[in-house]
Amino acid sequence: MIGRHRHLIGLEHLSREELLSVLELSTSMKEVLRRPLKKVPTLRGKAVVNLFFEASTRTRTSFETAAKILSADAVNWSSSTSSVTKGETLVDTARNIEAMHPDILIIRHPASGAPQLVADRVGCAVVSAGDGAHEHPSQGLLDLYTLAEYFTAAAGRKDAAPDFGLLAGKTVAIVGDVSHSRVARSDLFGLRTLGAHVRLCGPPTMMPPGLEALGASVHHHLQEAVKDADAIVMLRIQHERIGDPLIPGTREYSKFWGLNEKKVAEWLAPACCILHPGPINRGVELSPEVADGPRSVILDQVENGVAVRMAILYLLAGGAQDAGQGGARA
Amino acid sequence: MIGRHRHLIGLEHLSREELLSVLELSTSMKEVLRRPLKKVPTLRGKAVVNLFFEASTRTRTSFETAAKILSADAVNWSSSTSSVTKGETLVDTARNIEAMHPDILIIRHPASGAPQLVADRVGCAVVSAGDGAHEHPSQGLLDLYTLAEYFTAAAGRKDAAPDFGLLAGKTVAIVGDVSHSRVARSDLFGLRTLGAHVRLCGPPTMMPPGLEALGASVHHHLQEAVKDADAIVMLRIQHERIGDPLIPGTREYSKFWGLNEKKVAEWLAPACCILHPGPINRGVELSPEVADGPRSVILDQVENGVAVRMAILYLLAGGAQDAGQGGARA
Amino acid sequence: MIGRHRHLIGLEHLSREELLSVLELSTSMKEVLRRPLKKVPTLRGKAVVNLFFEASTRTRTSFETAAKILSADAVNWSSSTSSVTKGETLVDTARNIEAMHPDILIIRHPASGAPQLVADRVGCAVVSAGDGAHEHPSQGLLDLYTLAEYFTAAAGRKDAAPDFGLLAGKTVAIVGDVSHSRVARSDLFGLRTLGAHVRLCGPPTMMPPGLEALGASVHHHLQEAVKDADAIVMLRIQHERIGDPLIPGTREYSKFWGLNEKKVAEWLAPACCILHPGPINRGVELSPEVADGPRSVILDQVENGVAVRMAILYLLAGGAQDAGQGGARA
Repeated sequence: MIGRHRHLIGLEHLSREELLSVLELSTSMKEVLRRPLKKVPTLRGKAVVNLFFEASTRTRTSFETAAKILSADAVNWSSSTSSVTKGETLVDTARNIEAMHPDILIIRHPASGAPQLVADRVGCAVVSAGDGAHEHPSQGLLDLYTLAEYFTAAAGRKDAAPDFGLLAGKTVAIVGDVSHSRVARSDLFGLRTLGAHVRLCGPPTMMPPGLEALGASVHHHLQEAVKDADAIVMLRIQHERIGDPLIPGTREYSKFWGLNEKKVAEWLAPACCILHPGPINRGVELSPEVADGPRSVILDQVENGVAVRMAILYLLAGGAQDAGQGGARA
Repeated sequence: MIGRHRHLIGLEHLSREELLSVLELSTSMKEVLRRPLKKVPTLRGKAVVNLFFEASTRTRTSFETAAKILSADAVNWSSSTSSVTKGETLVDTARNIEAMHPDILIIRHPASGAPQLVADRVGCAVVSAGDGAHEHPSQGLLDLYTLAEYFTAAAGRKDAAPDFGLLAGKTVAIVGDVSHSRVARSDLFGLRTLGAHVRLCGPPTMMPPGLEALGASVHHHLQEAVKDADAIVMLRIQHERIGDPLIPGTREYSKFWGLNEKKVAEWLAPACCILHPGPINRGVELSPEVADGPRSVILDQVENGVAVRMAILYLLAGGAQDAGQGGARA
Repeated sequence: MIGRHRHLIGLEHLSREELLSVLELSTSMKEVLRRPLKKVPTLRGKAVVNLFFEASTRTRTSFETAAKILSADAVNWSSSTSSVTKGETLVDTARNIEAMHPDILIIRHPASGAPQLVADRVGCAVVSAGDGAHEHPSQGLLDLYTLAEYFTAAAGRKDAAPDFGLLAGKTVAIVGDVSHSRVARSDLFGLRTLGAHVRLCGPPTMMPPGLEALGASVHHHLQEAVKDADAIVMLRIQHERIGDPLIPGTREYSKFWGLNEKKVAEWLAPACCILHPGPINRGVELSPEVADGPRSVILDQVENGVAVRMAILYLLAGGAQDAGQGGARA
């Protein structure tokens, strides 16, 4: 359980306390991840199924690594070789998997709402690993963790545990294809709940109306959006969007919405850090120098992703301590 | 060993006692599967290789889950990325896998007889996970298990272990594309050995001649086939068959060979249950109401599939008790 | 560590002592592999990632099996479903994987030099599983092991551990597409370092100039190359080469560069053994009778491959004994 929730479908409806329960546990999990022998018996006898309807080795591997460190068994159910190609419905597939007694079902699906649809119909815990343009909650949590870790170090407490209270009052700019980004939505919800200010910025064709209602400010010029920001999340531009009516080409995108060393030096506050959910299109969203530069916390995001997912799996599988009472499925 | 057999290629040549040895062990395995911590060290140090030449996440995952619960190591050798695409023969592939010391090799292959061909040439145990139109023995066993479990509950012994003696004298109708169905053949052999009556029914173009010689009665009208039956196994109709000369279309198939609520209410005996090997074509073999209705034991089949496969792996890998004497490969 | 090396990119720069450290450990590993319960806790808590940019179930499975026997966690990062298809660079992918704290990254890549490129940029150990036409070091090591094992048995010491000193002074002929073969290069380097004579032989279009400078003799007639040889390594001819200007067809290749029973009987020394890296094109490099005949040690190569890879993983992951000091990543 994450607070009142048996599933993790999005960050929109998580309270501050619920977000903090995952984030604070992640600090312990990161310590385990960094051990030379990174294996704890916590979820031994628990089973995790990865059900991915979109290619994502990165996220799938992160969840699989998290599961294995906690000694859970992980099975990959790939859609390309699955009965989905035989015409089975999503719910049938999920119910079939459920009948094999997994404790947690991790779903990525191109349709917004698919994980919720499944969660409403199965008995095991469901984690969204990204659904359409809706949410990508584990990415949102790892971004929150990485930001707090950065702000804690920037405050001179370099080896201290991340202080999530530092997110309050900070300003984070999210830049790019906001309308198609589940990362933008999960980041926005999480950041708002923890008290940060969020600015959204991108090509006008990629900024849906009504964003202000979500508690963000909307910007049409990158320089304005990043001015005095404490952090910038550069969204990934998807290849399939380029050349369609939304963006004329990568050169234009890079010119108006990308970051290079010159813009970083001239426009960003000295302590402002840069995040990106990956994989990076080098030379489009970020120049190589910026992607690999001192402000980039992109690889911290990847490492923290494993720690955050360990915390998510632990909380939703019930961990070892409630196993005596029957565990999550009993 | 399953009785005298080092491999599991089909149910045709298994004796009553051999079938019962797997089925009775499955009851213990199902108890393990349902534990909150579903992990036993029984097959620790044993290795299982899945060698699938046809897409089947469902069956592969079931075997993989079974292996992991028993603490065996499972490796997937997928044909699409394997040396098969480089022109290697099936036997060479199998011998190569064998040289890596698996204890059990699980094979699915589009050609009838492929698992036997391999079993004759390798030293490890071979389990067929379905070969062409020949047999699908683990599916046959899970169907037997599910039927006995249902009949035991229907006899008022709801929490008792399945009584496999109850299969004797029962009538089971198998409906659909009998000629291409390995499930039909494995079910037929297993049911006959345990004393059940089997009716086969399907479009005339999908009923090969000579079925009576296998001990089944042959029917050309669904209503006649299901009258007073104790259970019905609805076979999956494969998309690639529809539109070919064998079936004009799904509407015709559904009209003559599918089950909907009206037919179920008017034609079936009150206690008759419905099985389907999955994945279901909703609206073709079964209407959604019937697939999800009270007579359906389809998800029990999936759950029991893991338990039955745990029993198969245990018996063929030798389990822990004979390891001191050298185990299955010594 | 393999001697001074944190990575295993090729055999070219390994000293005699470094080669022997892997080979001698492989004998112990082979004993573990042959146990009825083949599981040791040596690398428990260590993580291995397979990053394959070319299809190779055989090599991937061998490494995965080796990892699991040593109780390491193995994760497969397949390029076909990975972010590589989203345009990420190889180094970005590797750094992302590294951020998830693997201890060993195993890479196969079509470009020569790719594993070295990665090794120069990540903190974990890197093992090449074959790169372009450069090297395939684990294949080279398993060939050395298999040859020493065969020579030891041929010297009348049938159950003794392989005596790697016996490689000195032996003559090994490597036959086929030398110019495209990473196996030929790794074999050549390893054999030369351990004191064997190497003959290279193949179609003139497949023999690059300058081979003598690597310490091999060059031959243009098969009969001459295999005369009095102690062993022959038949290289795999790749289908994509046949029909291109380099080889007119498989019949010609087989006639001039393949081995059948007649050539074996007339041309080979009585004790000469035959190796092949697999998968075999039966009837092209080797006739079926030769591939399955008494001189073939091809399946020994596969078995020894797991043992050699266990030794490689053990040495590079640091094993259990230095874990107390922080292990390979600390």
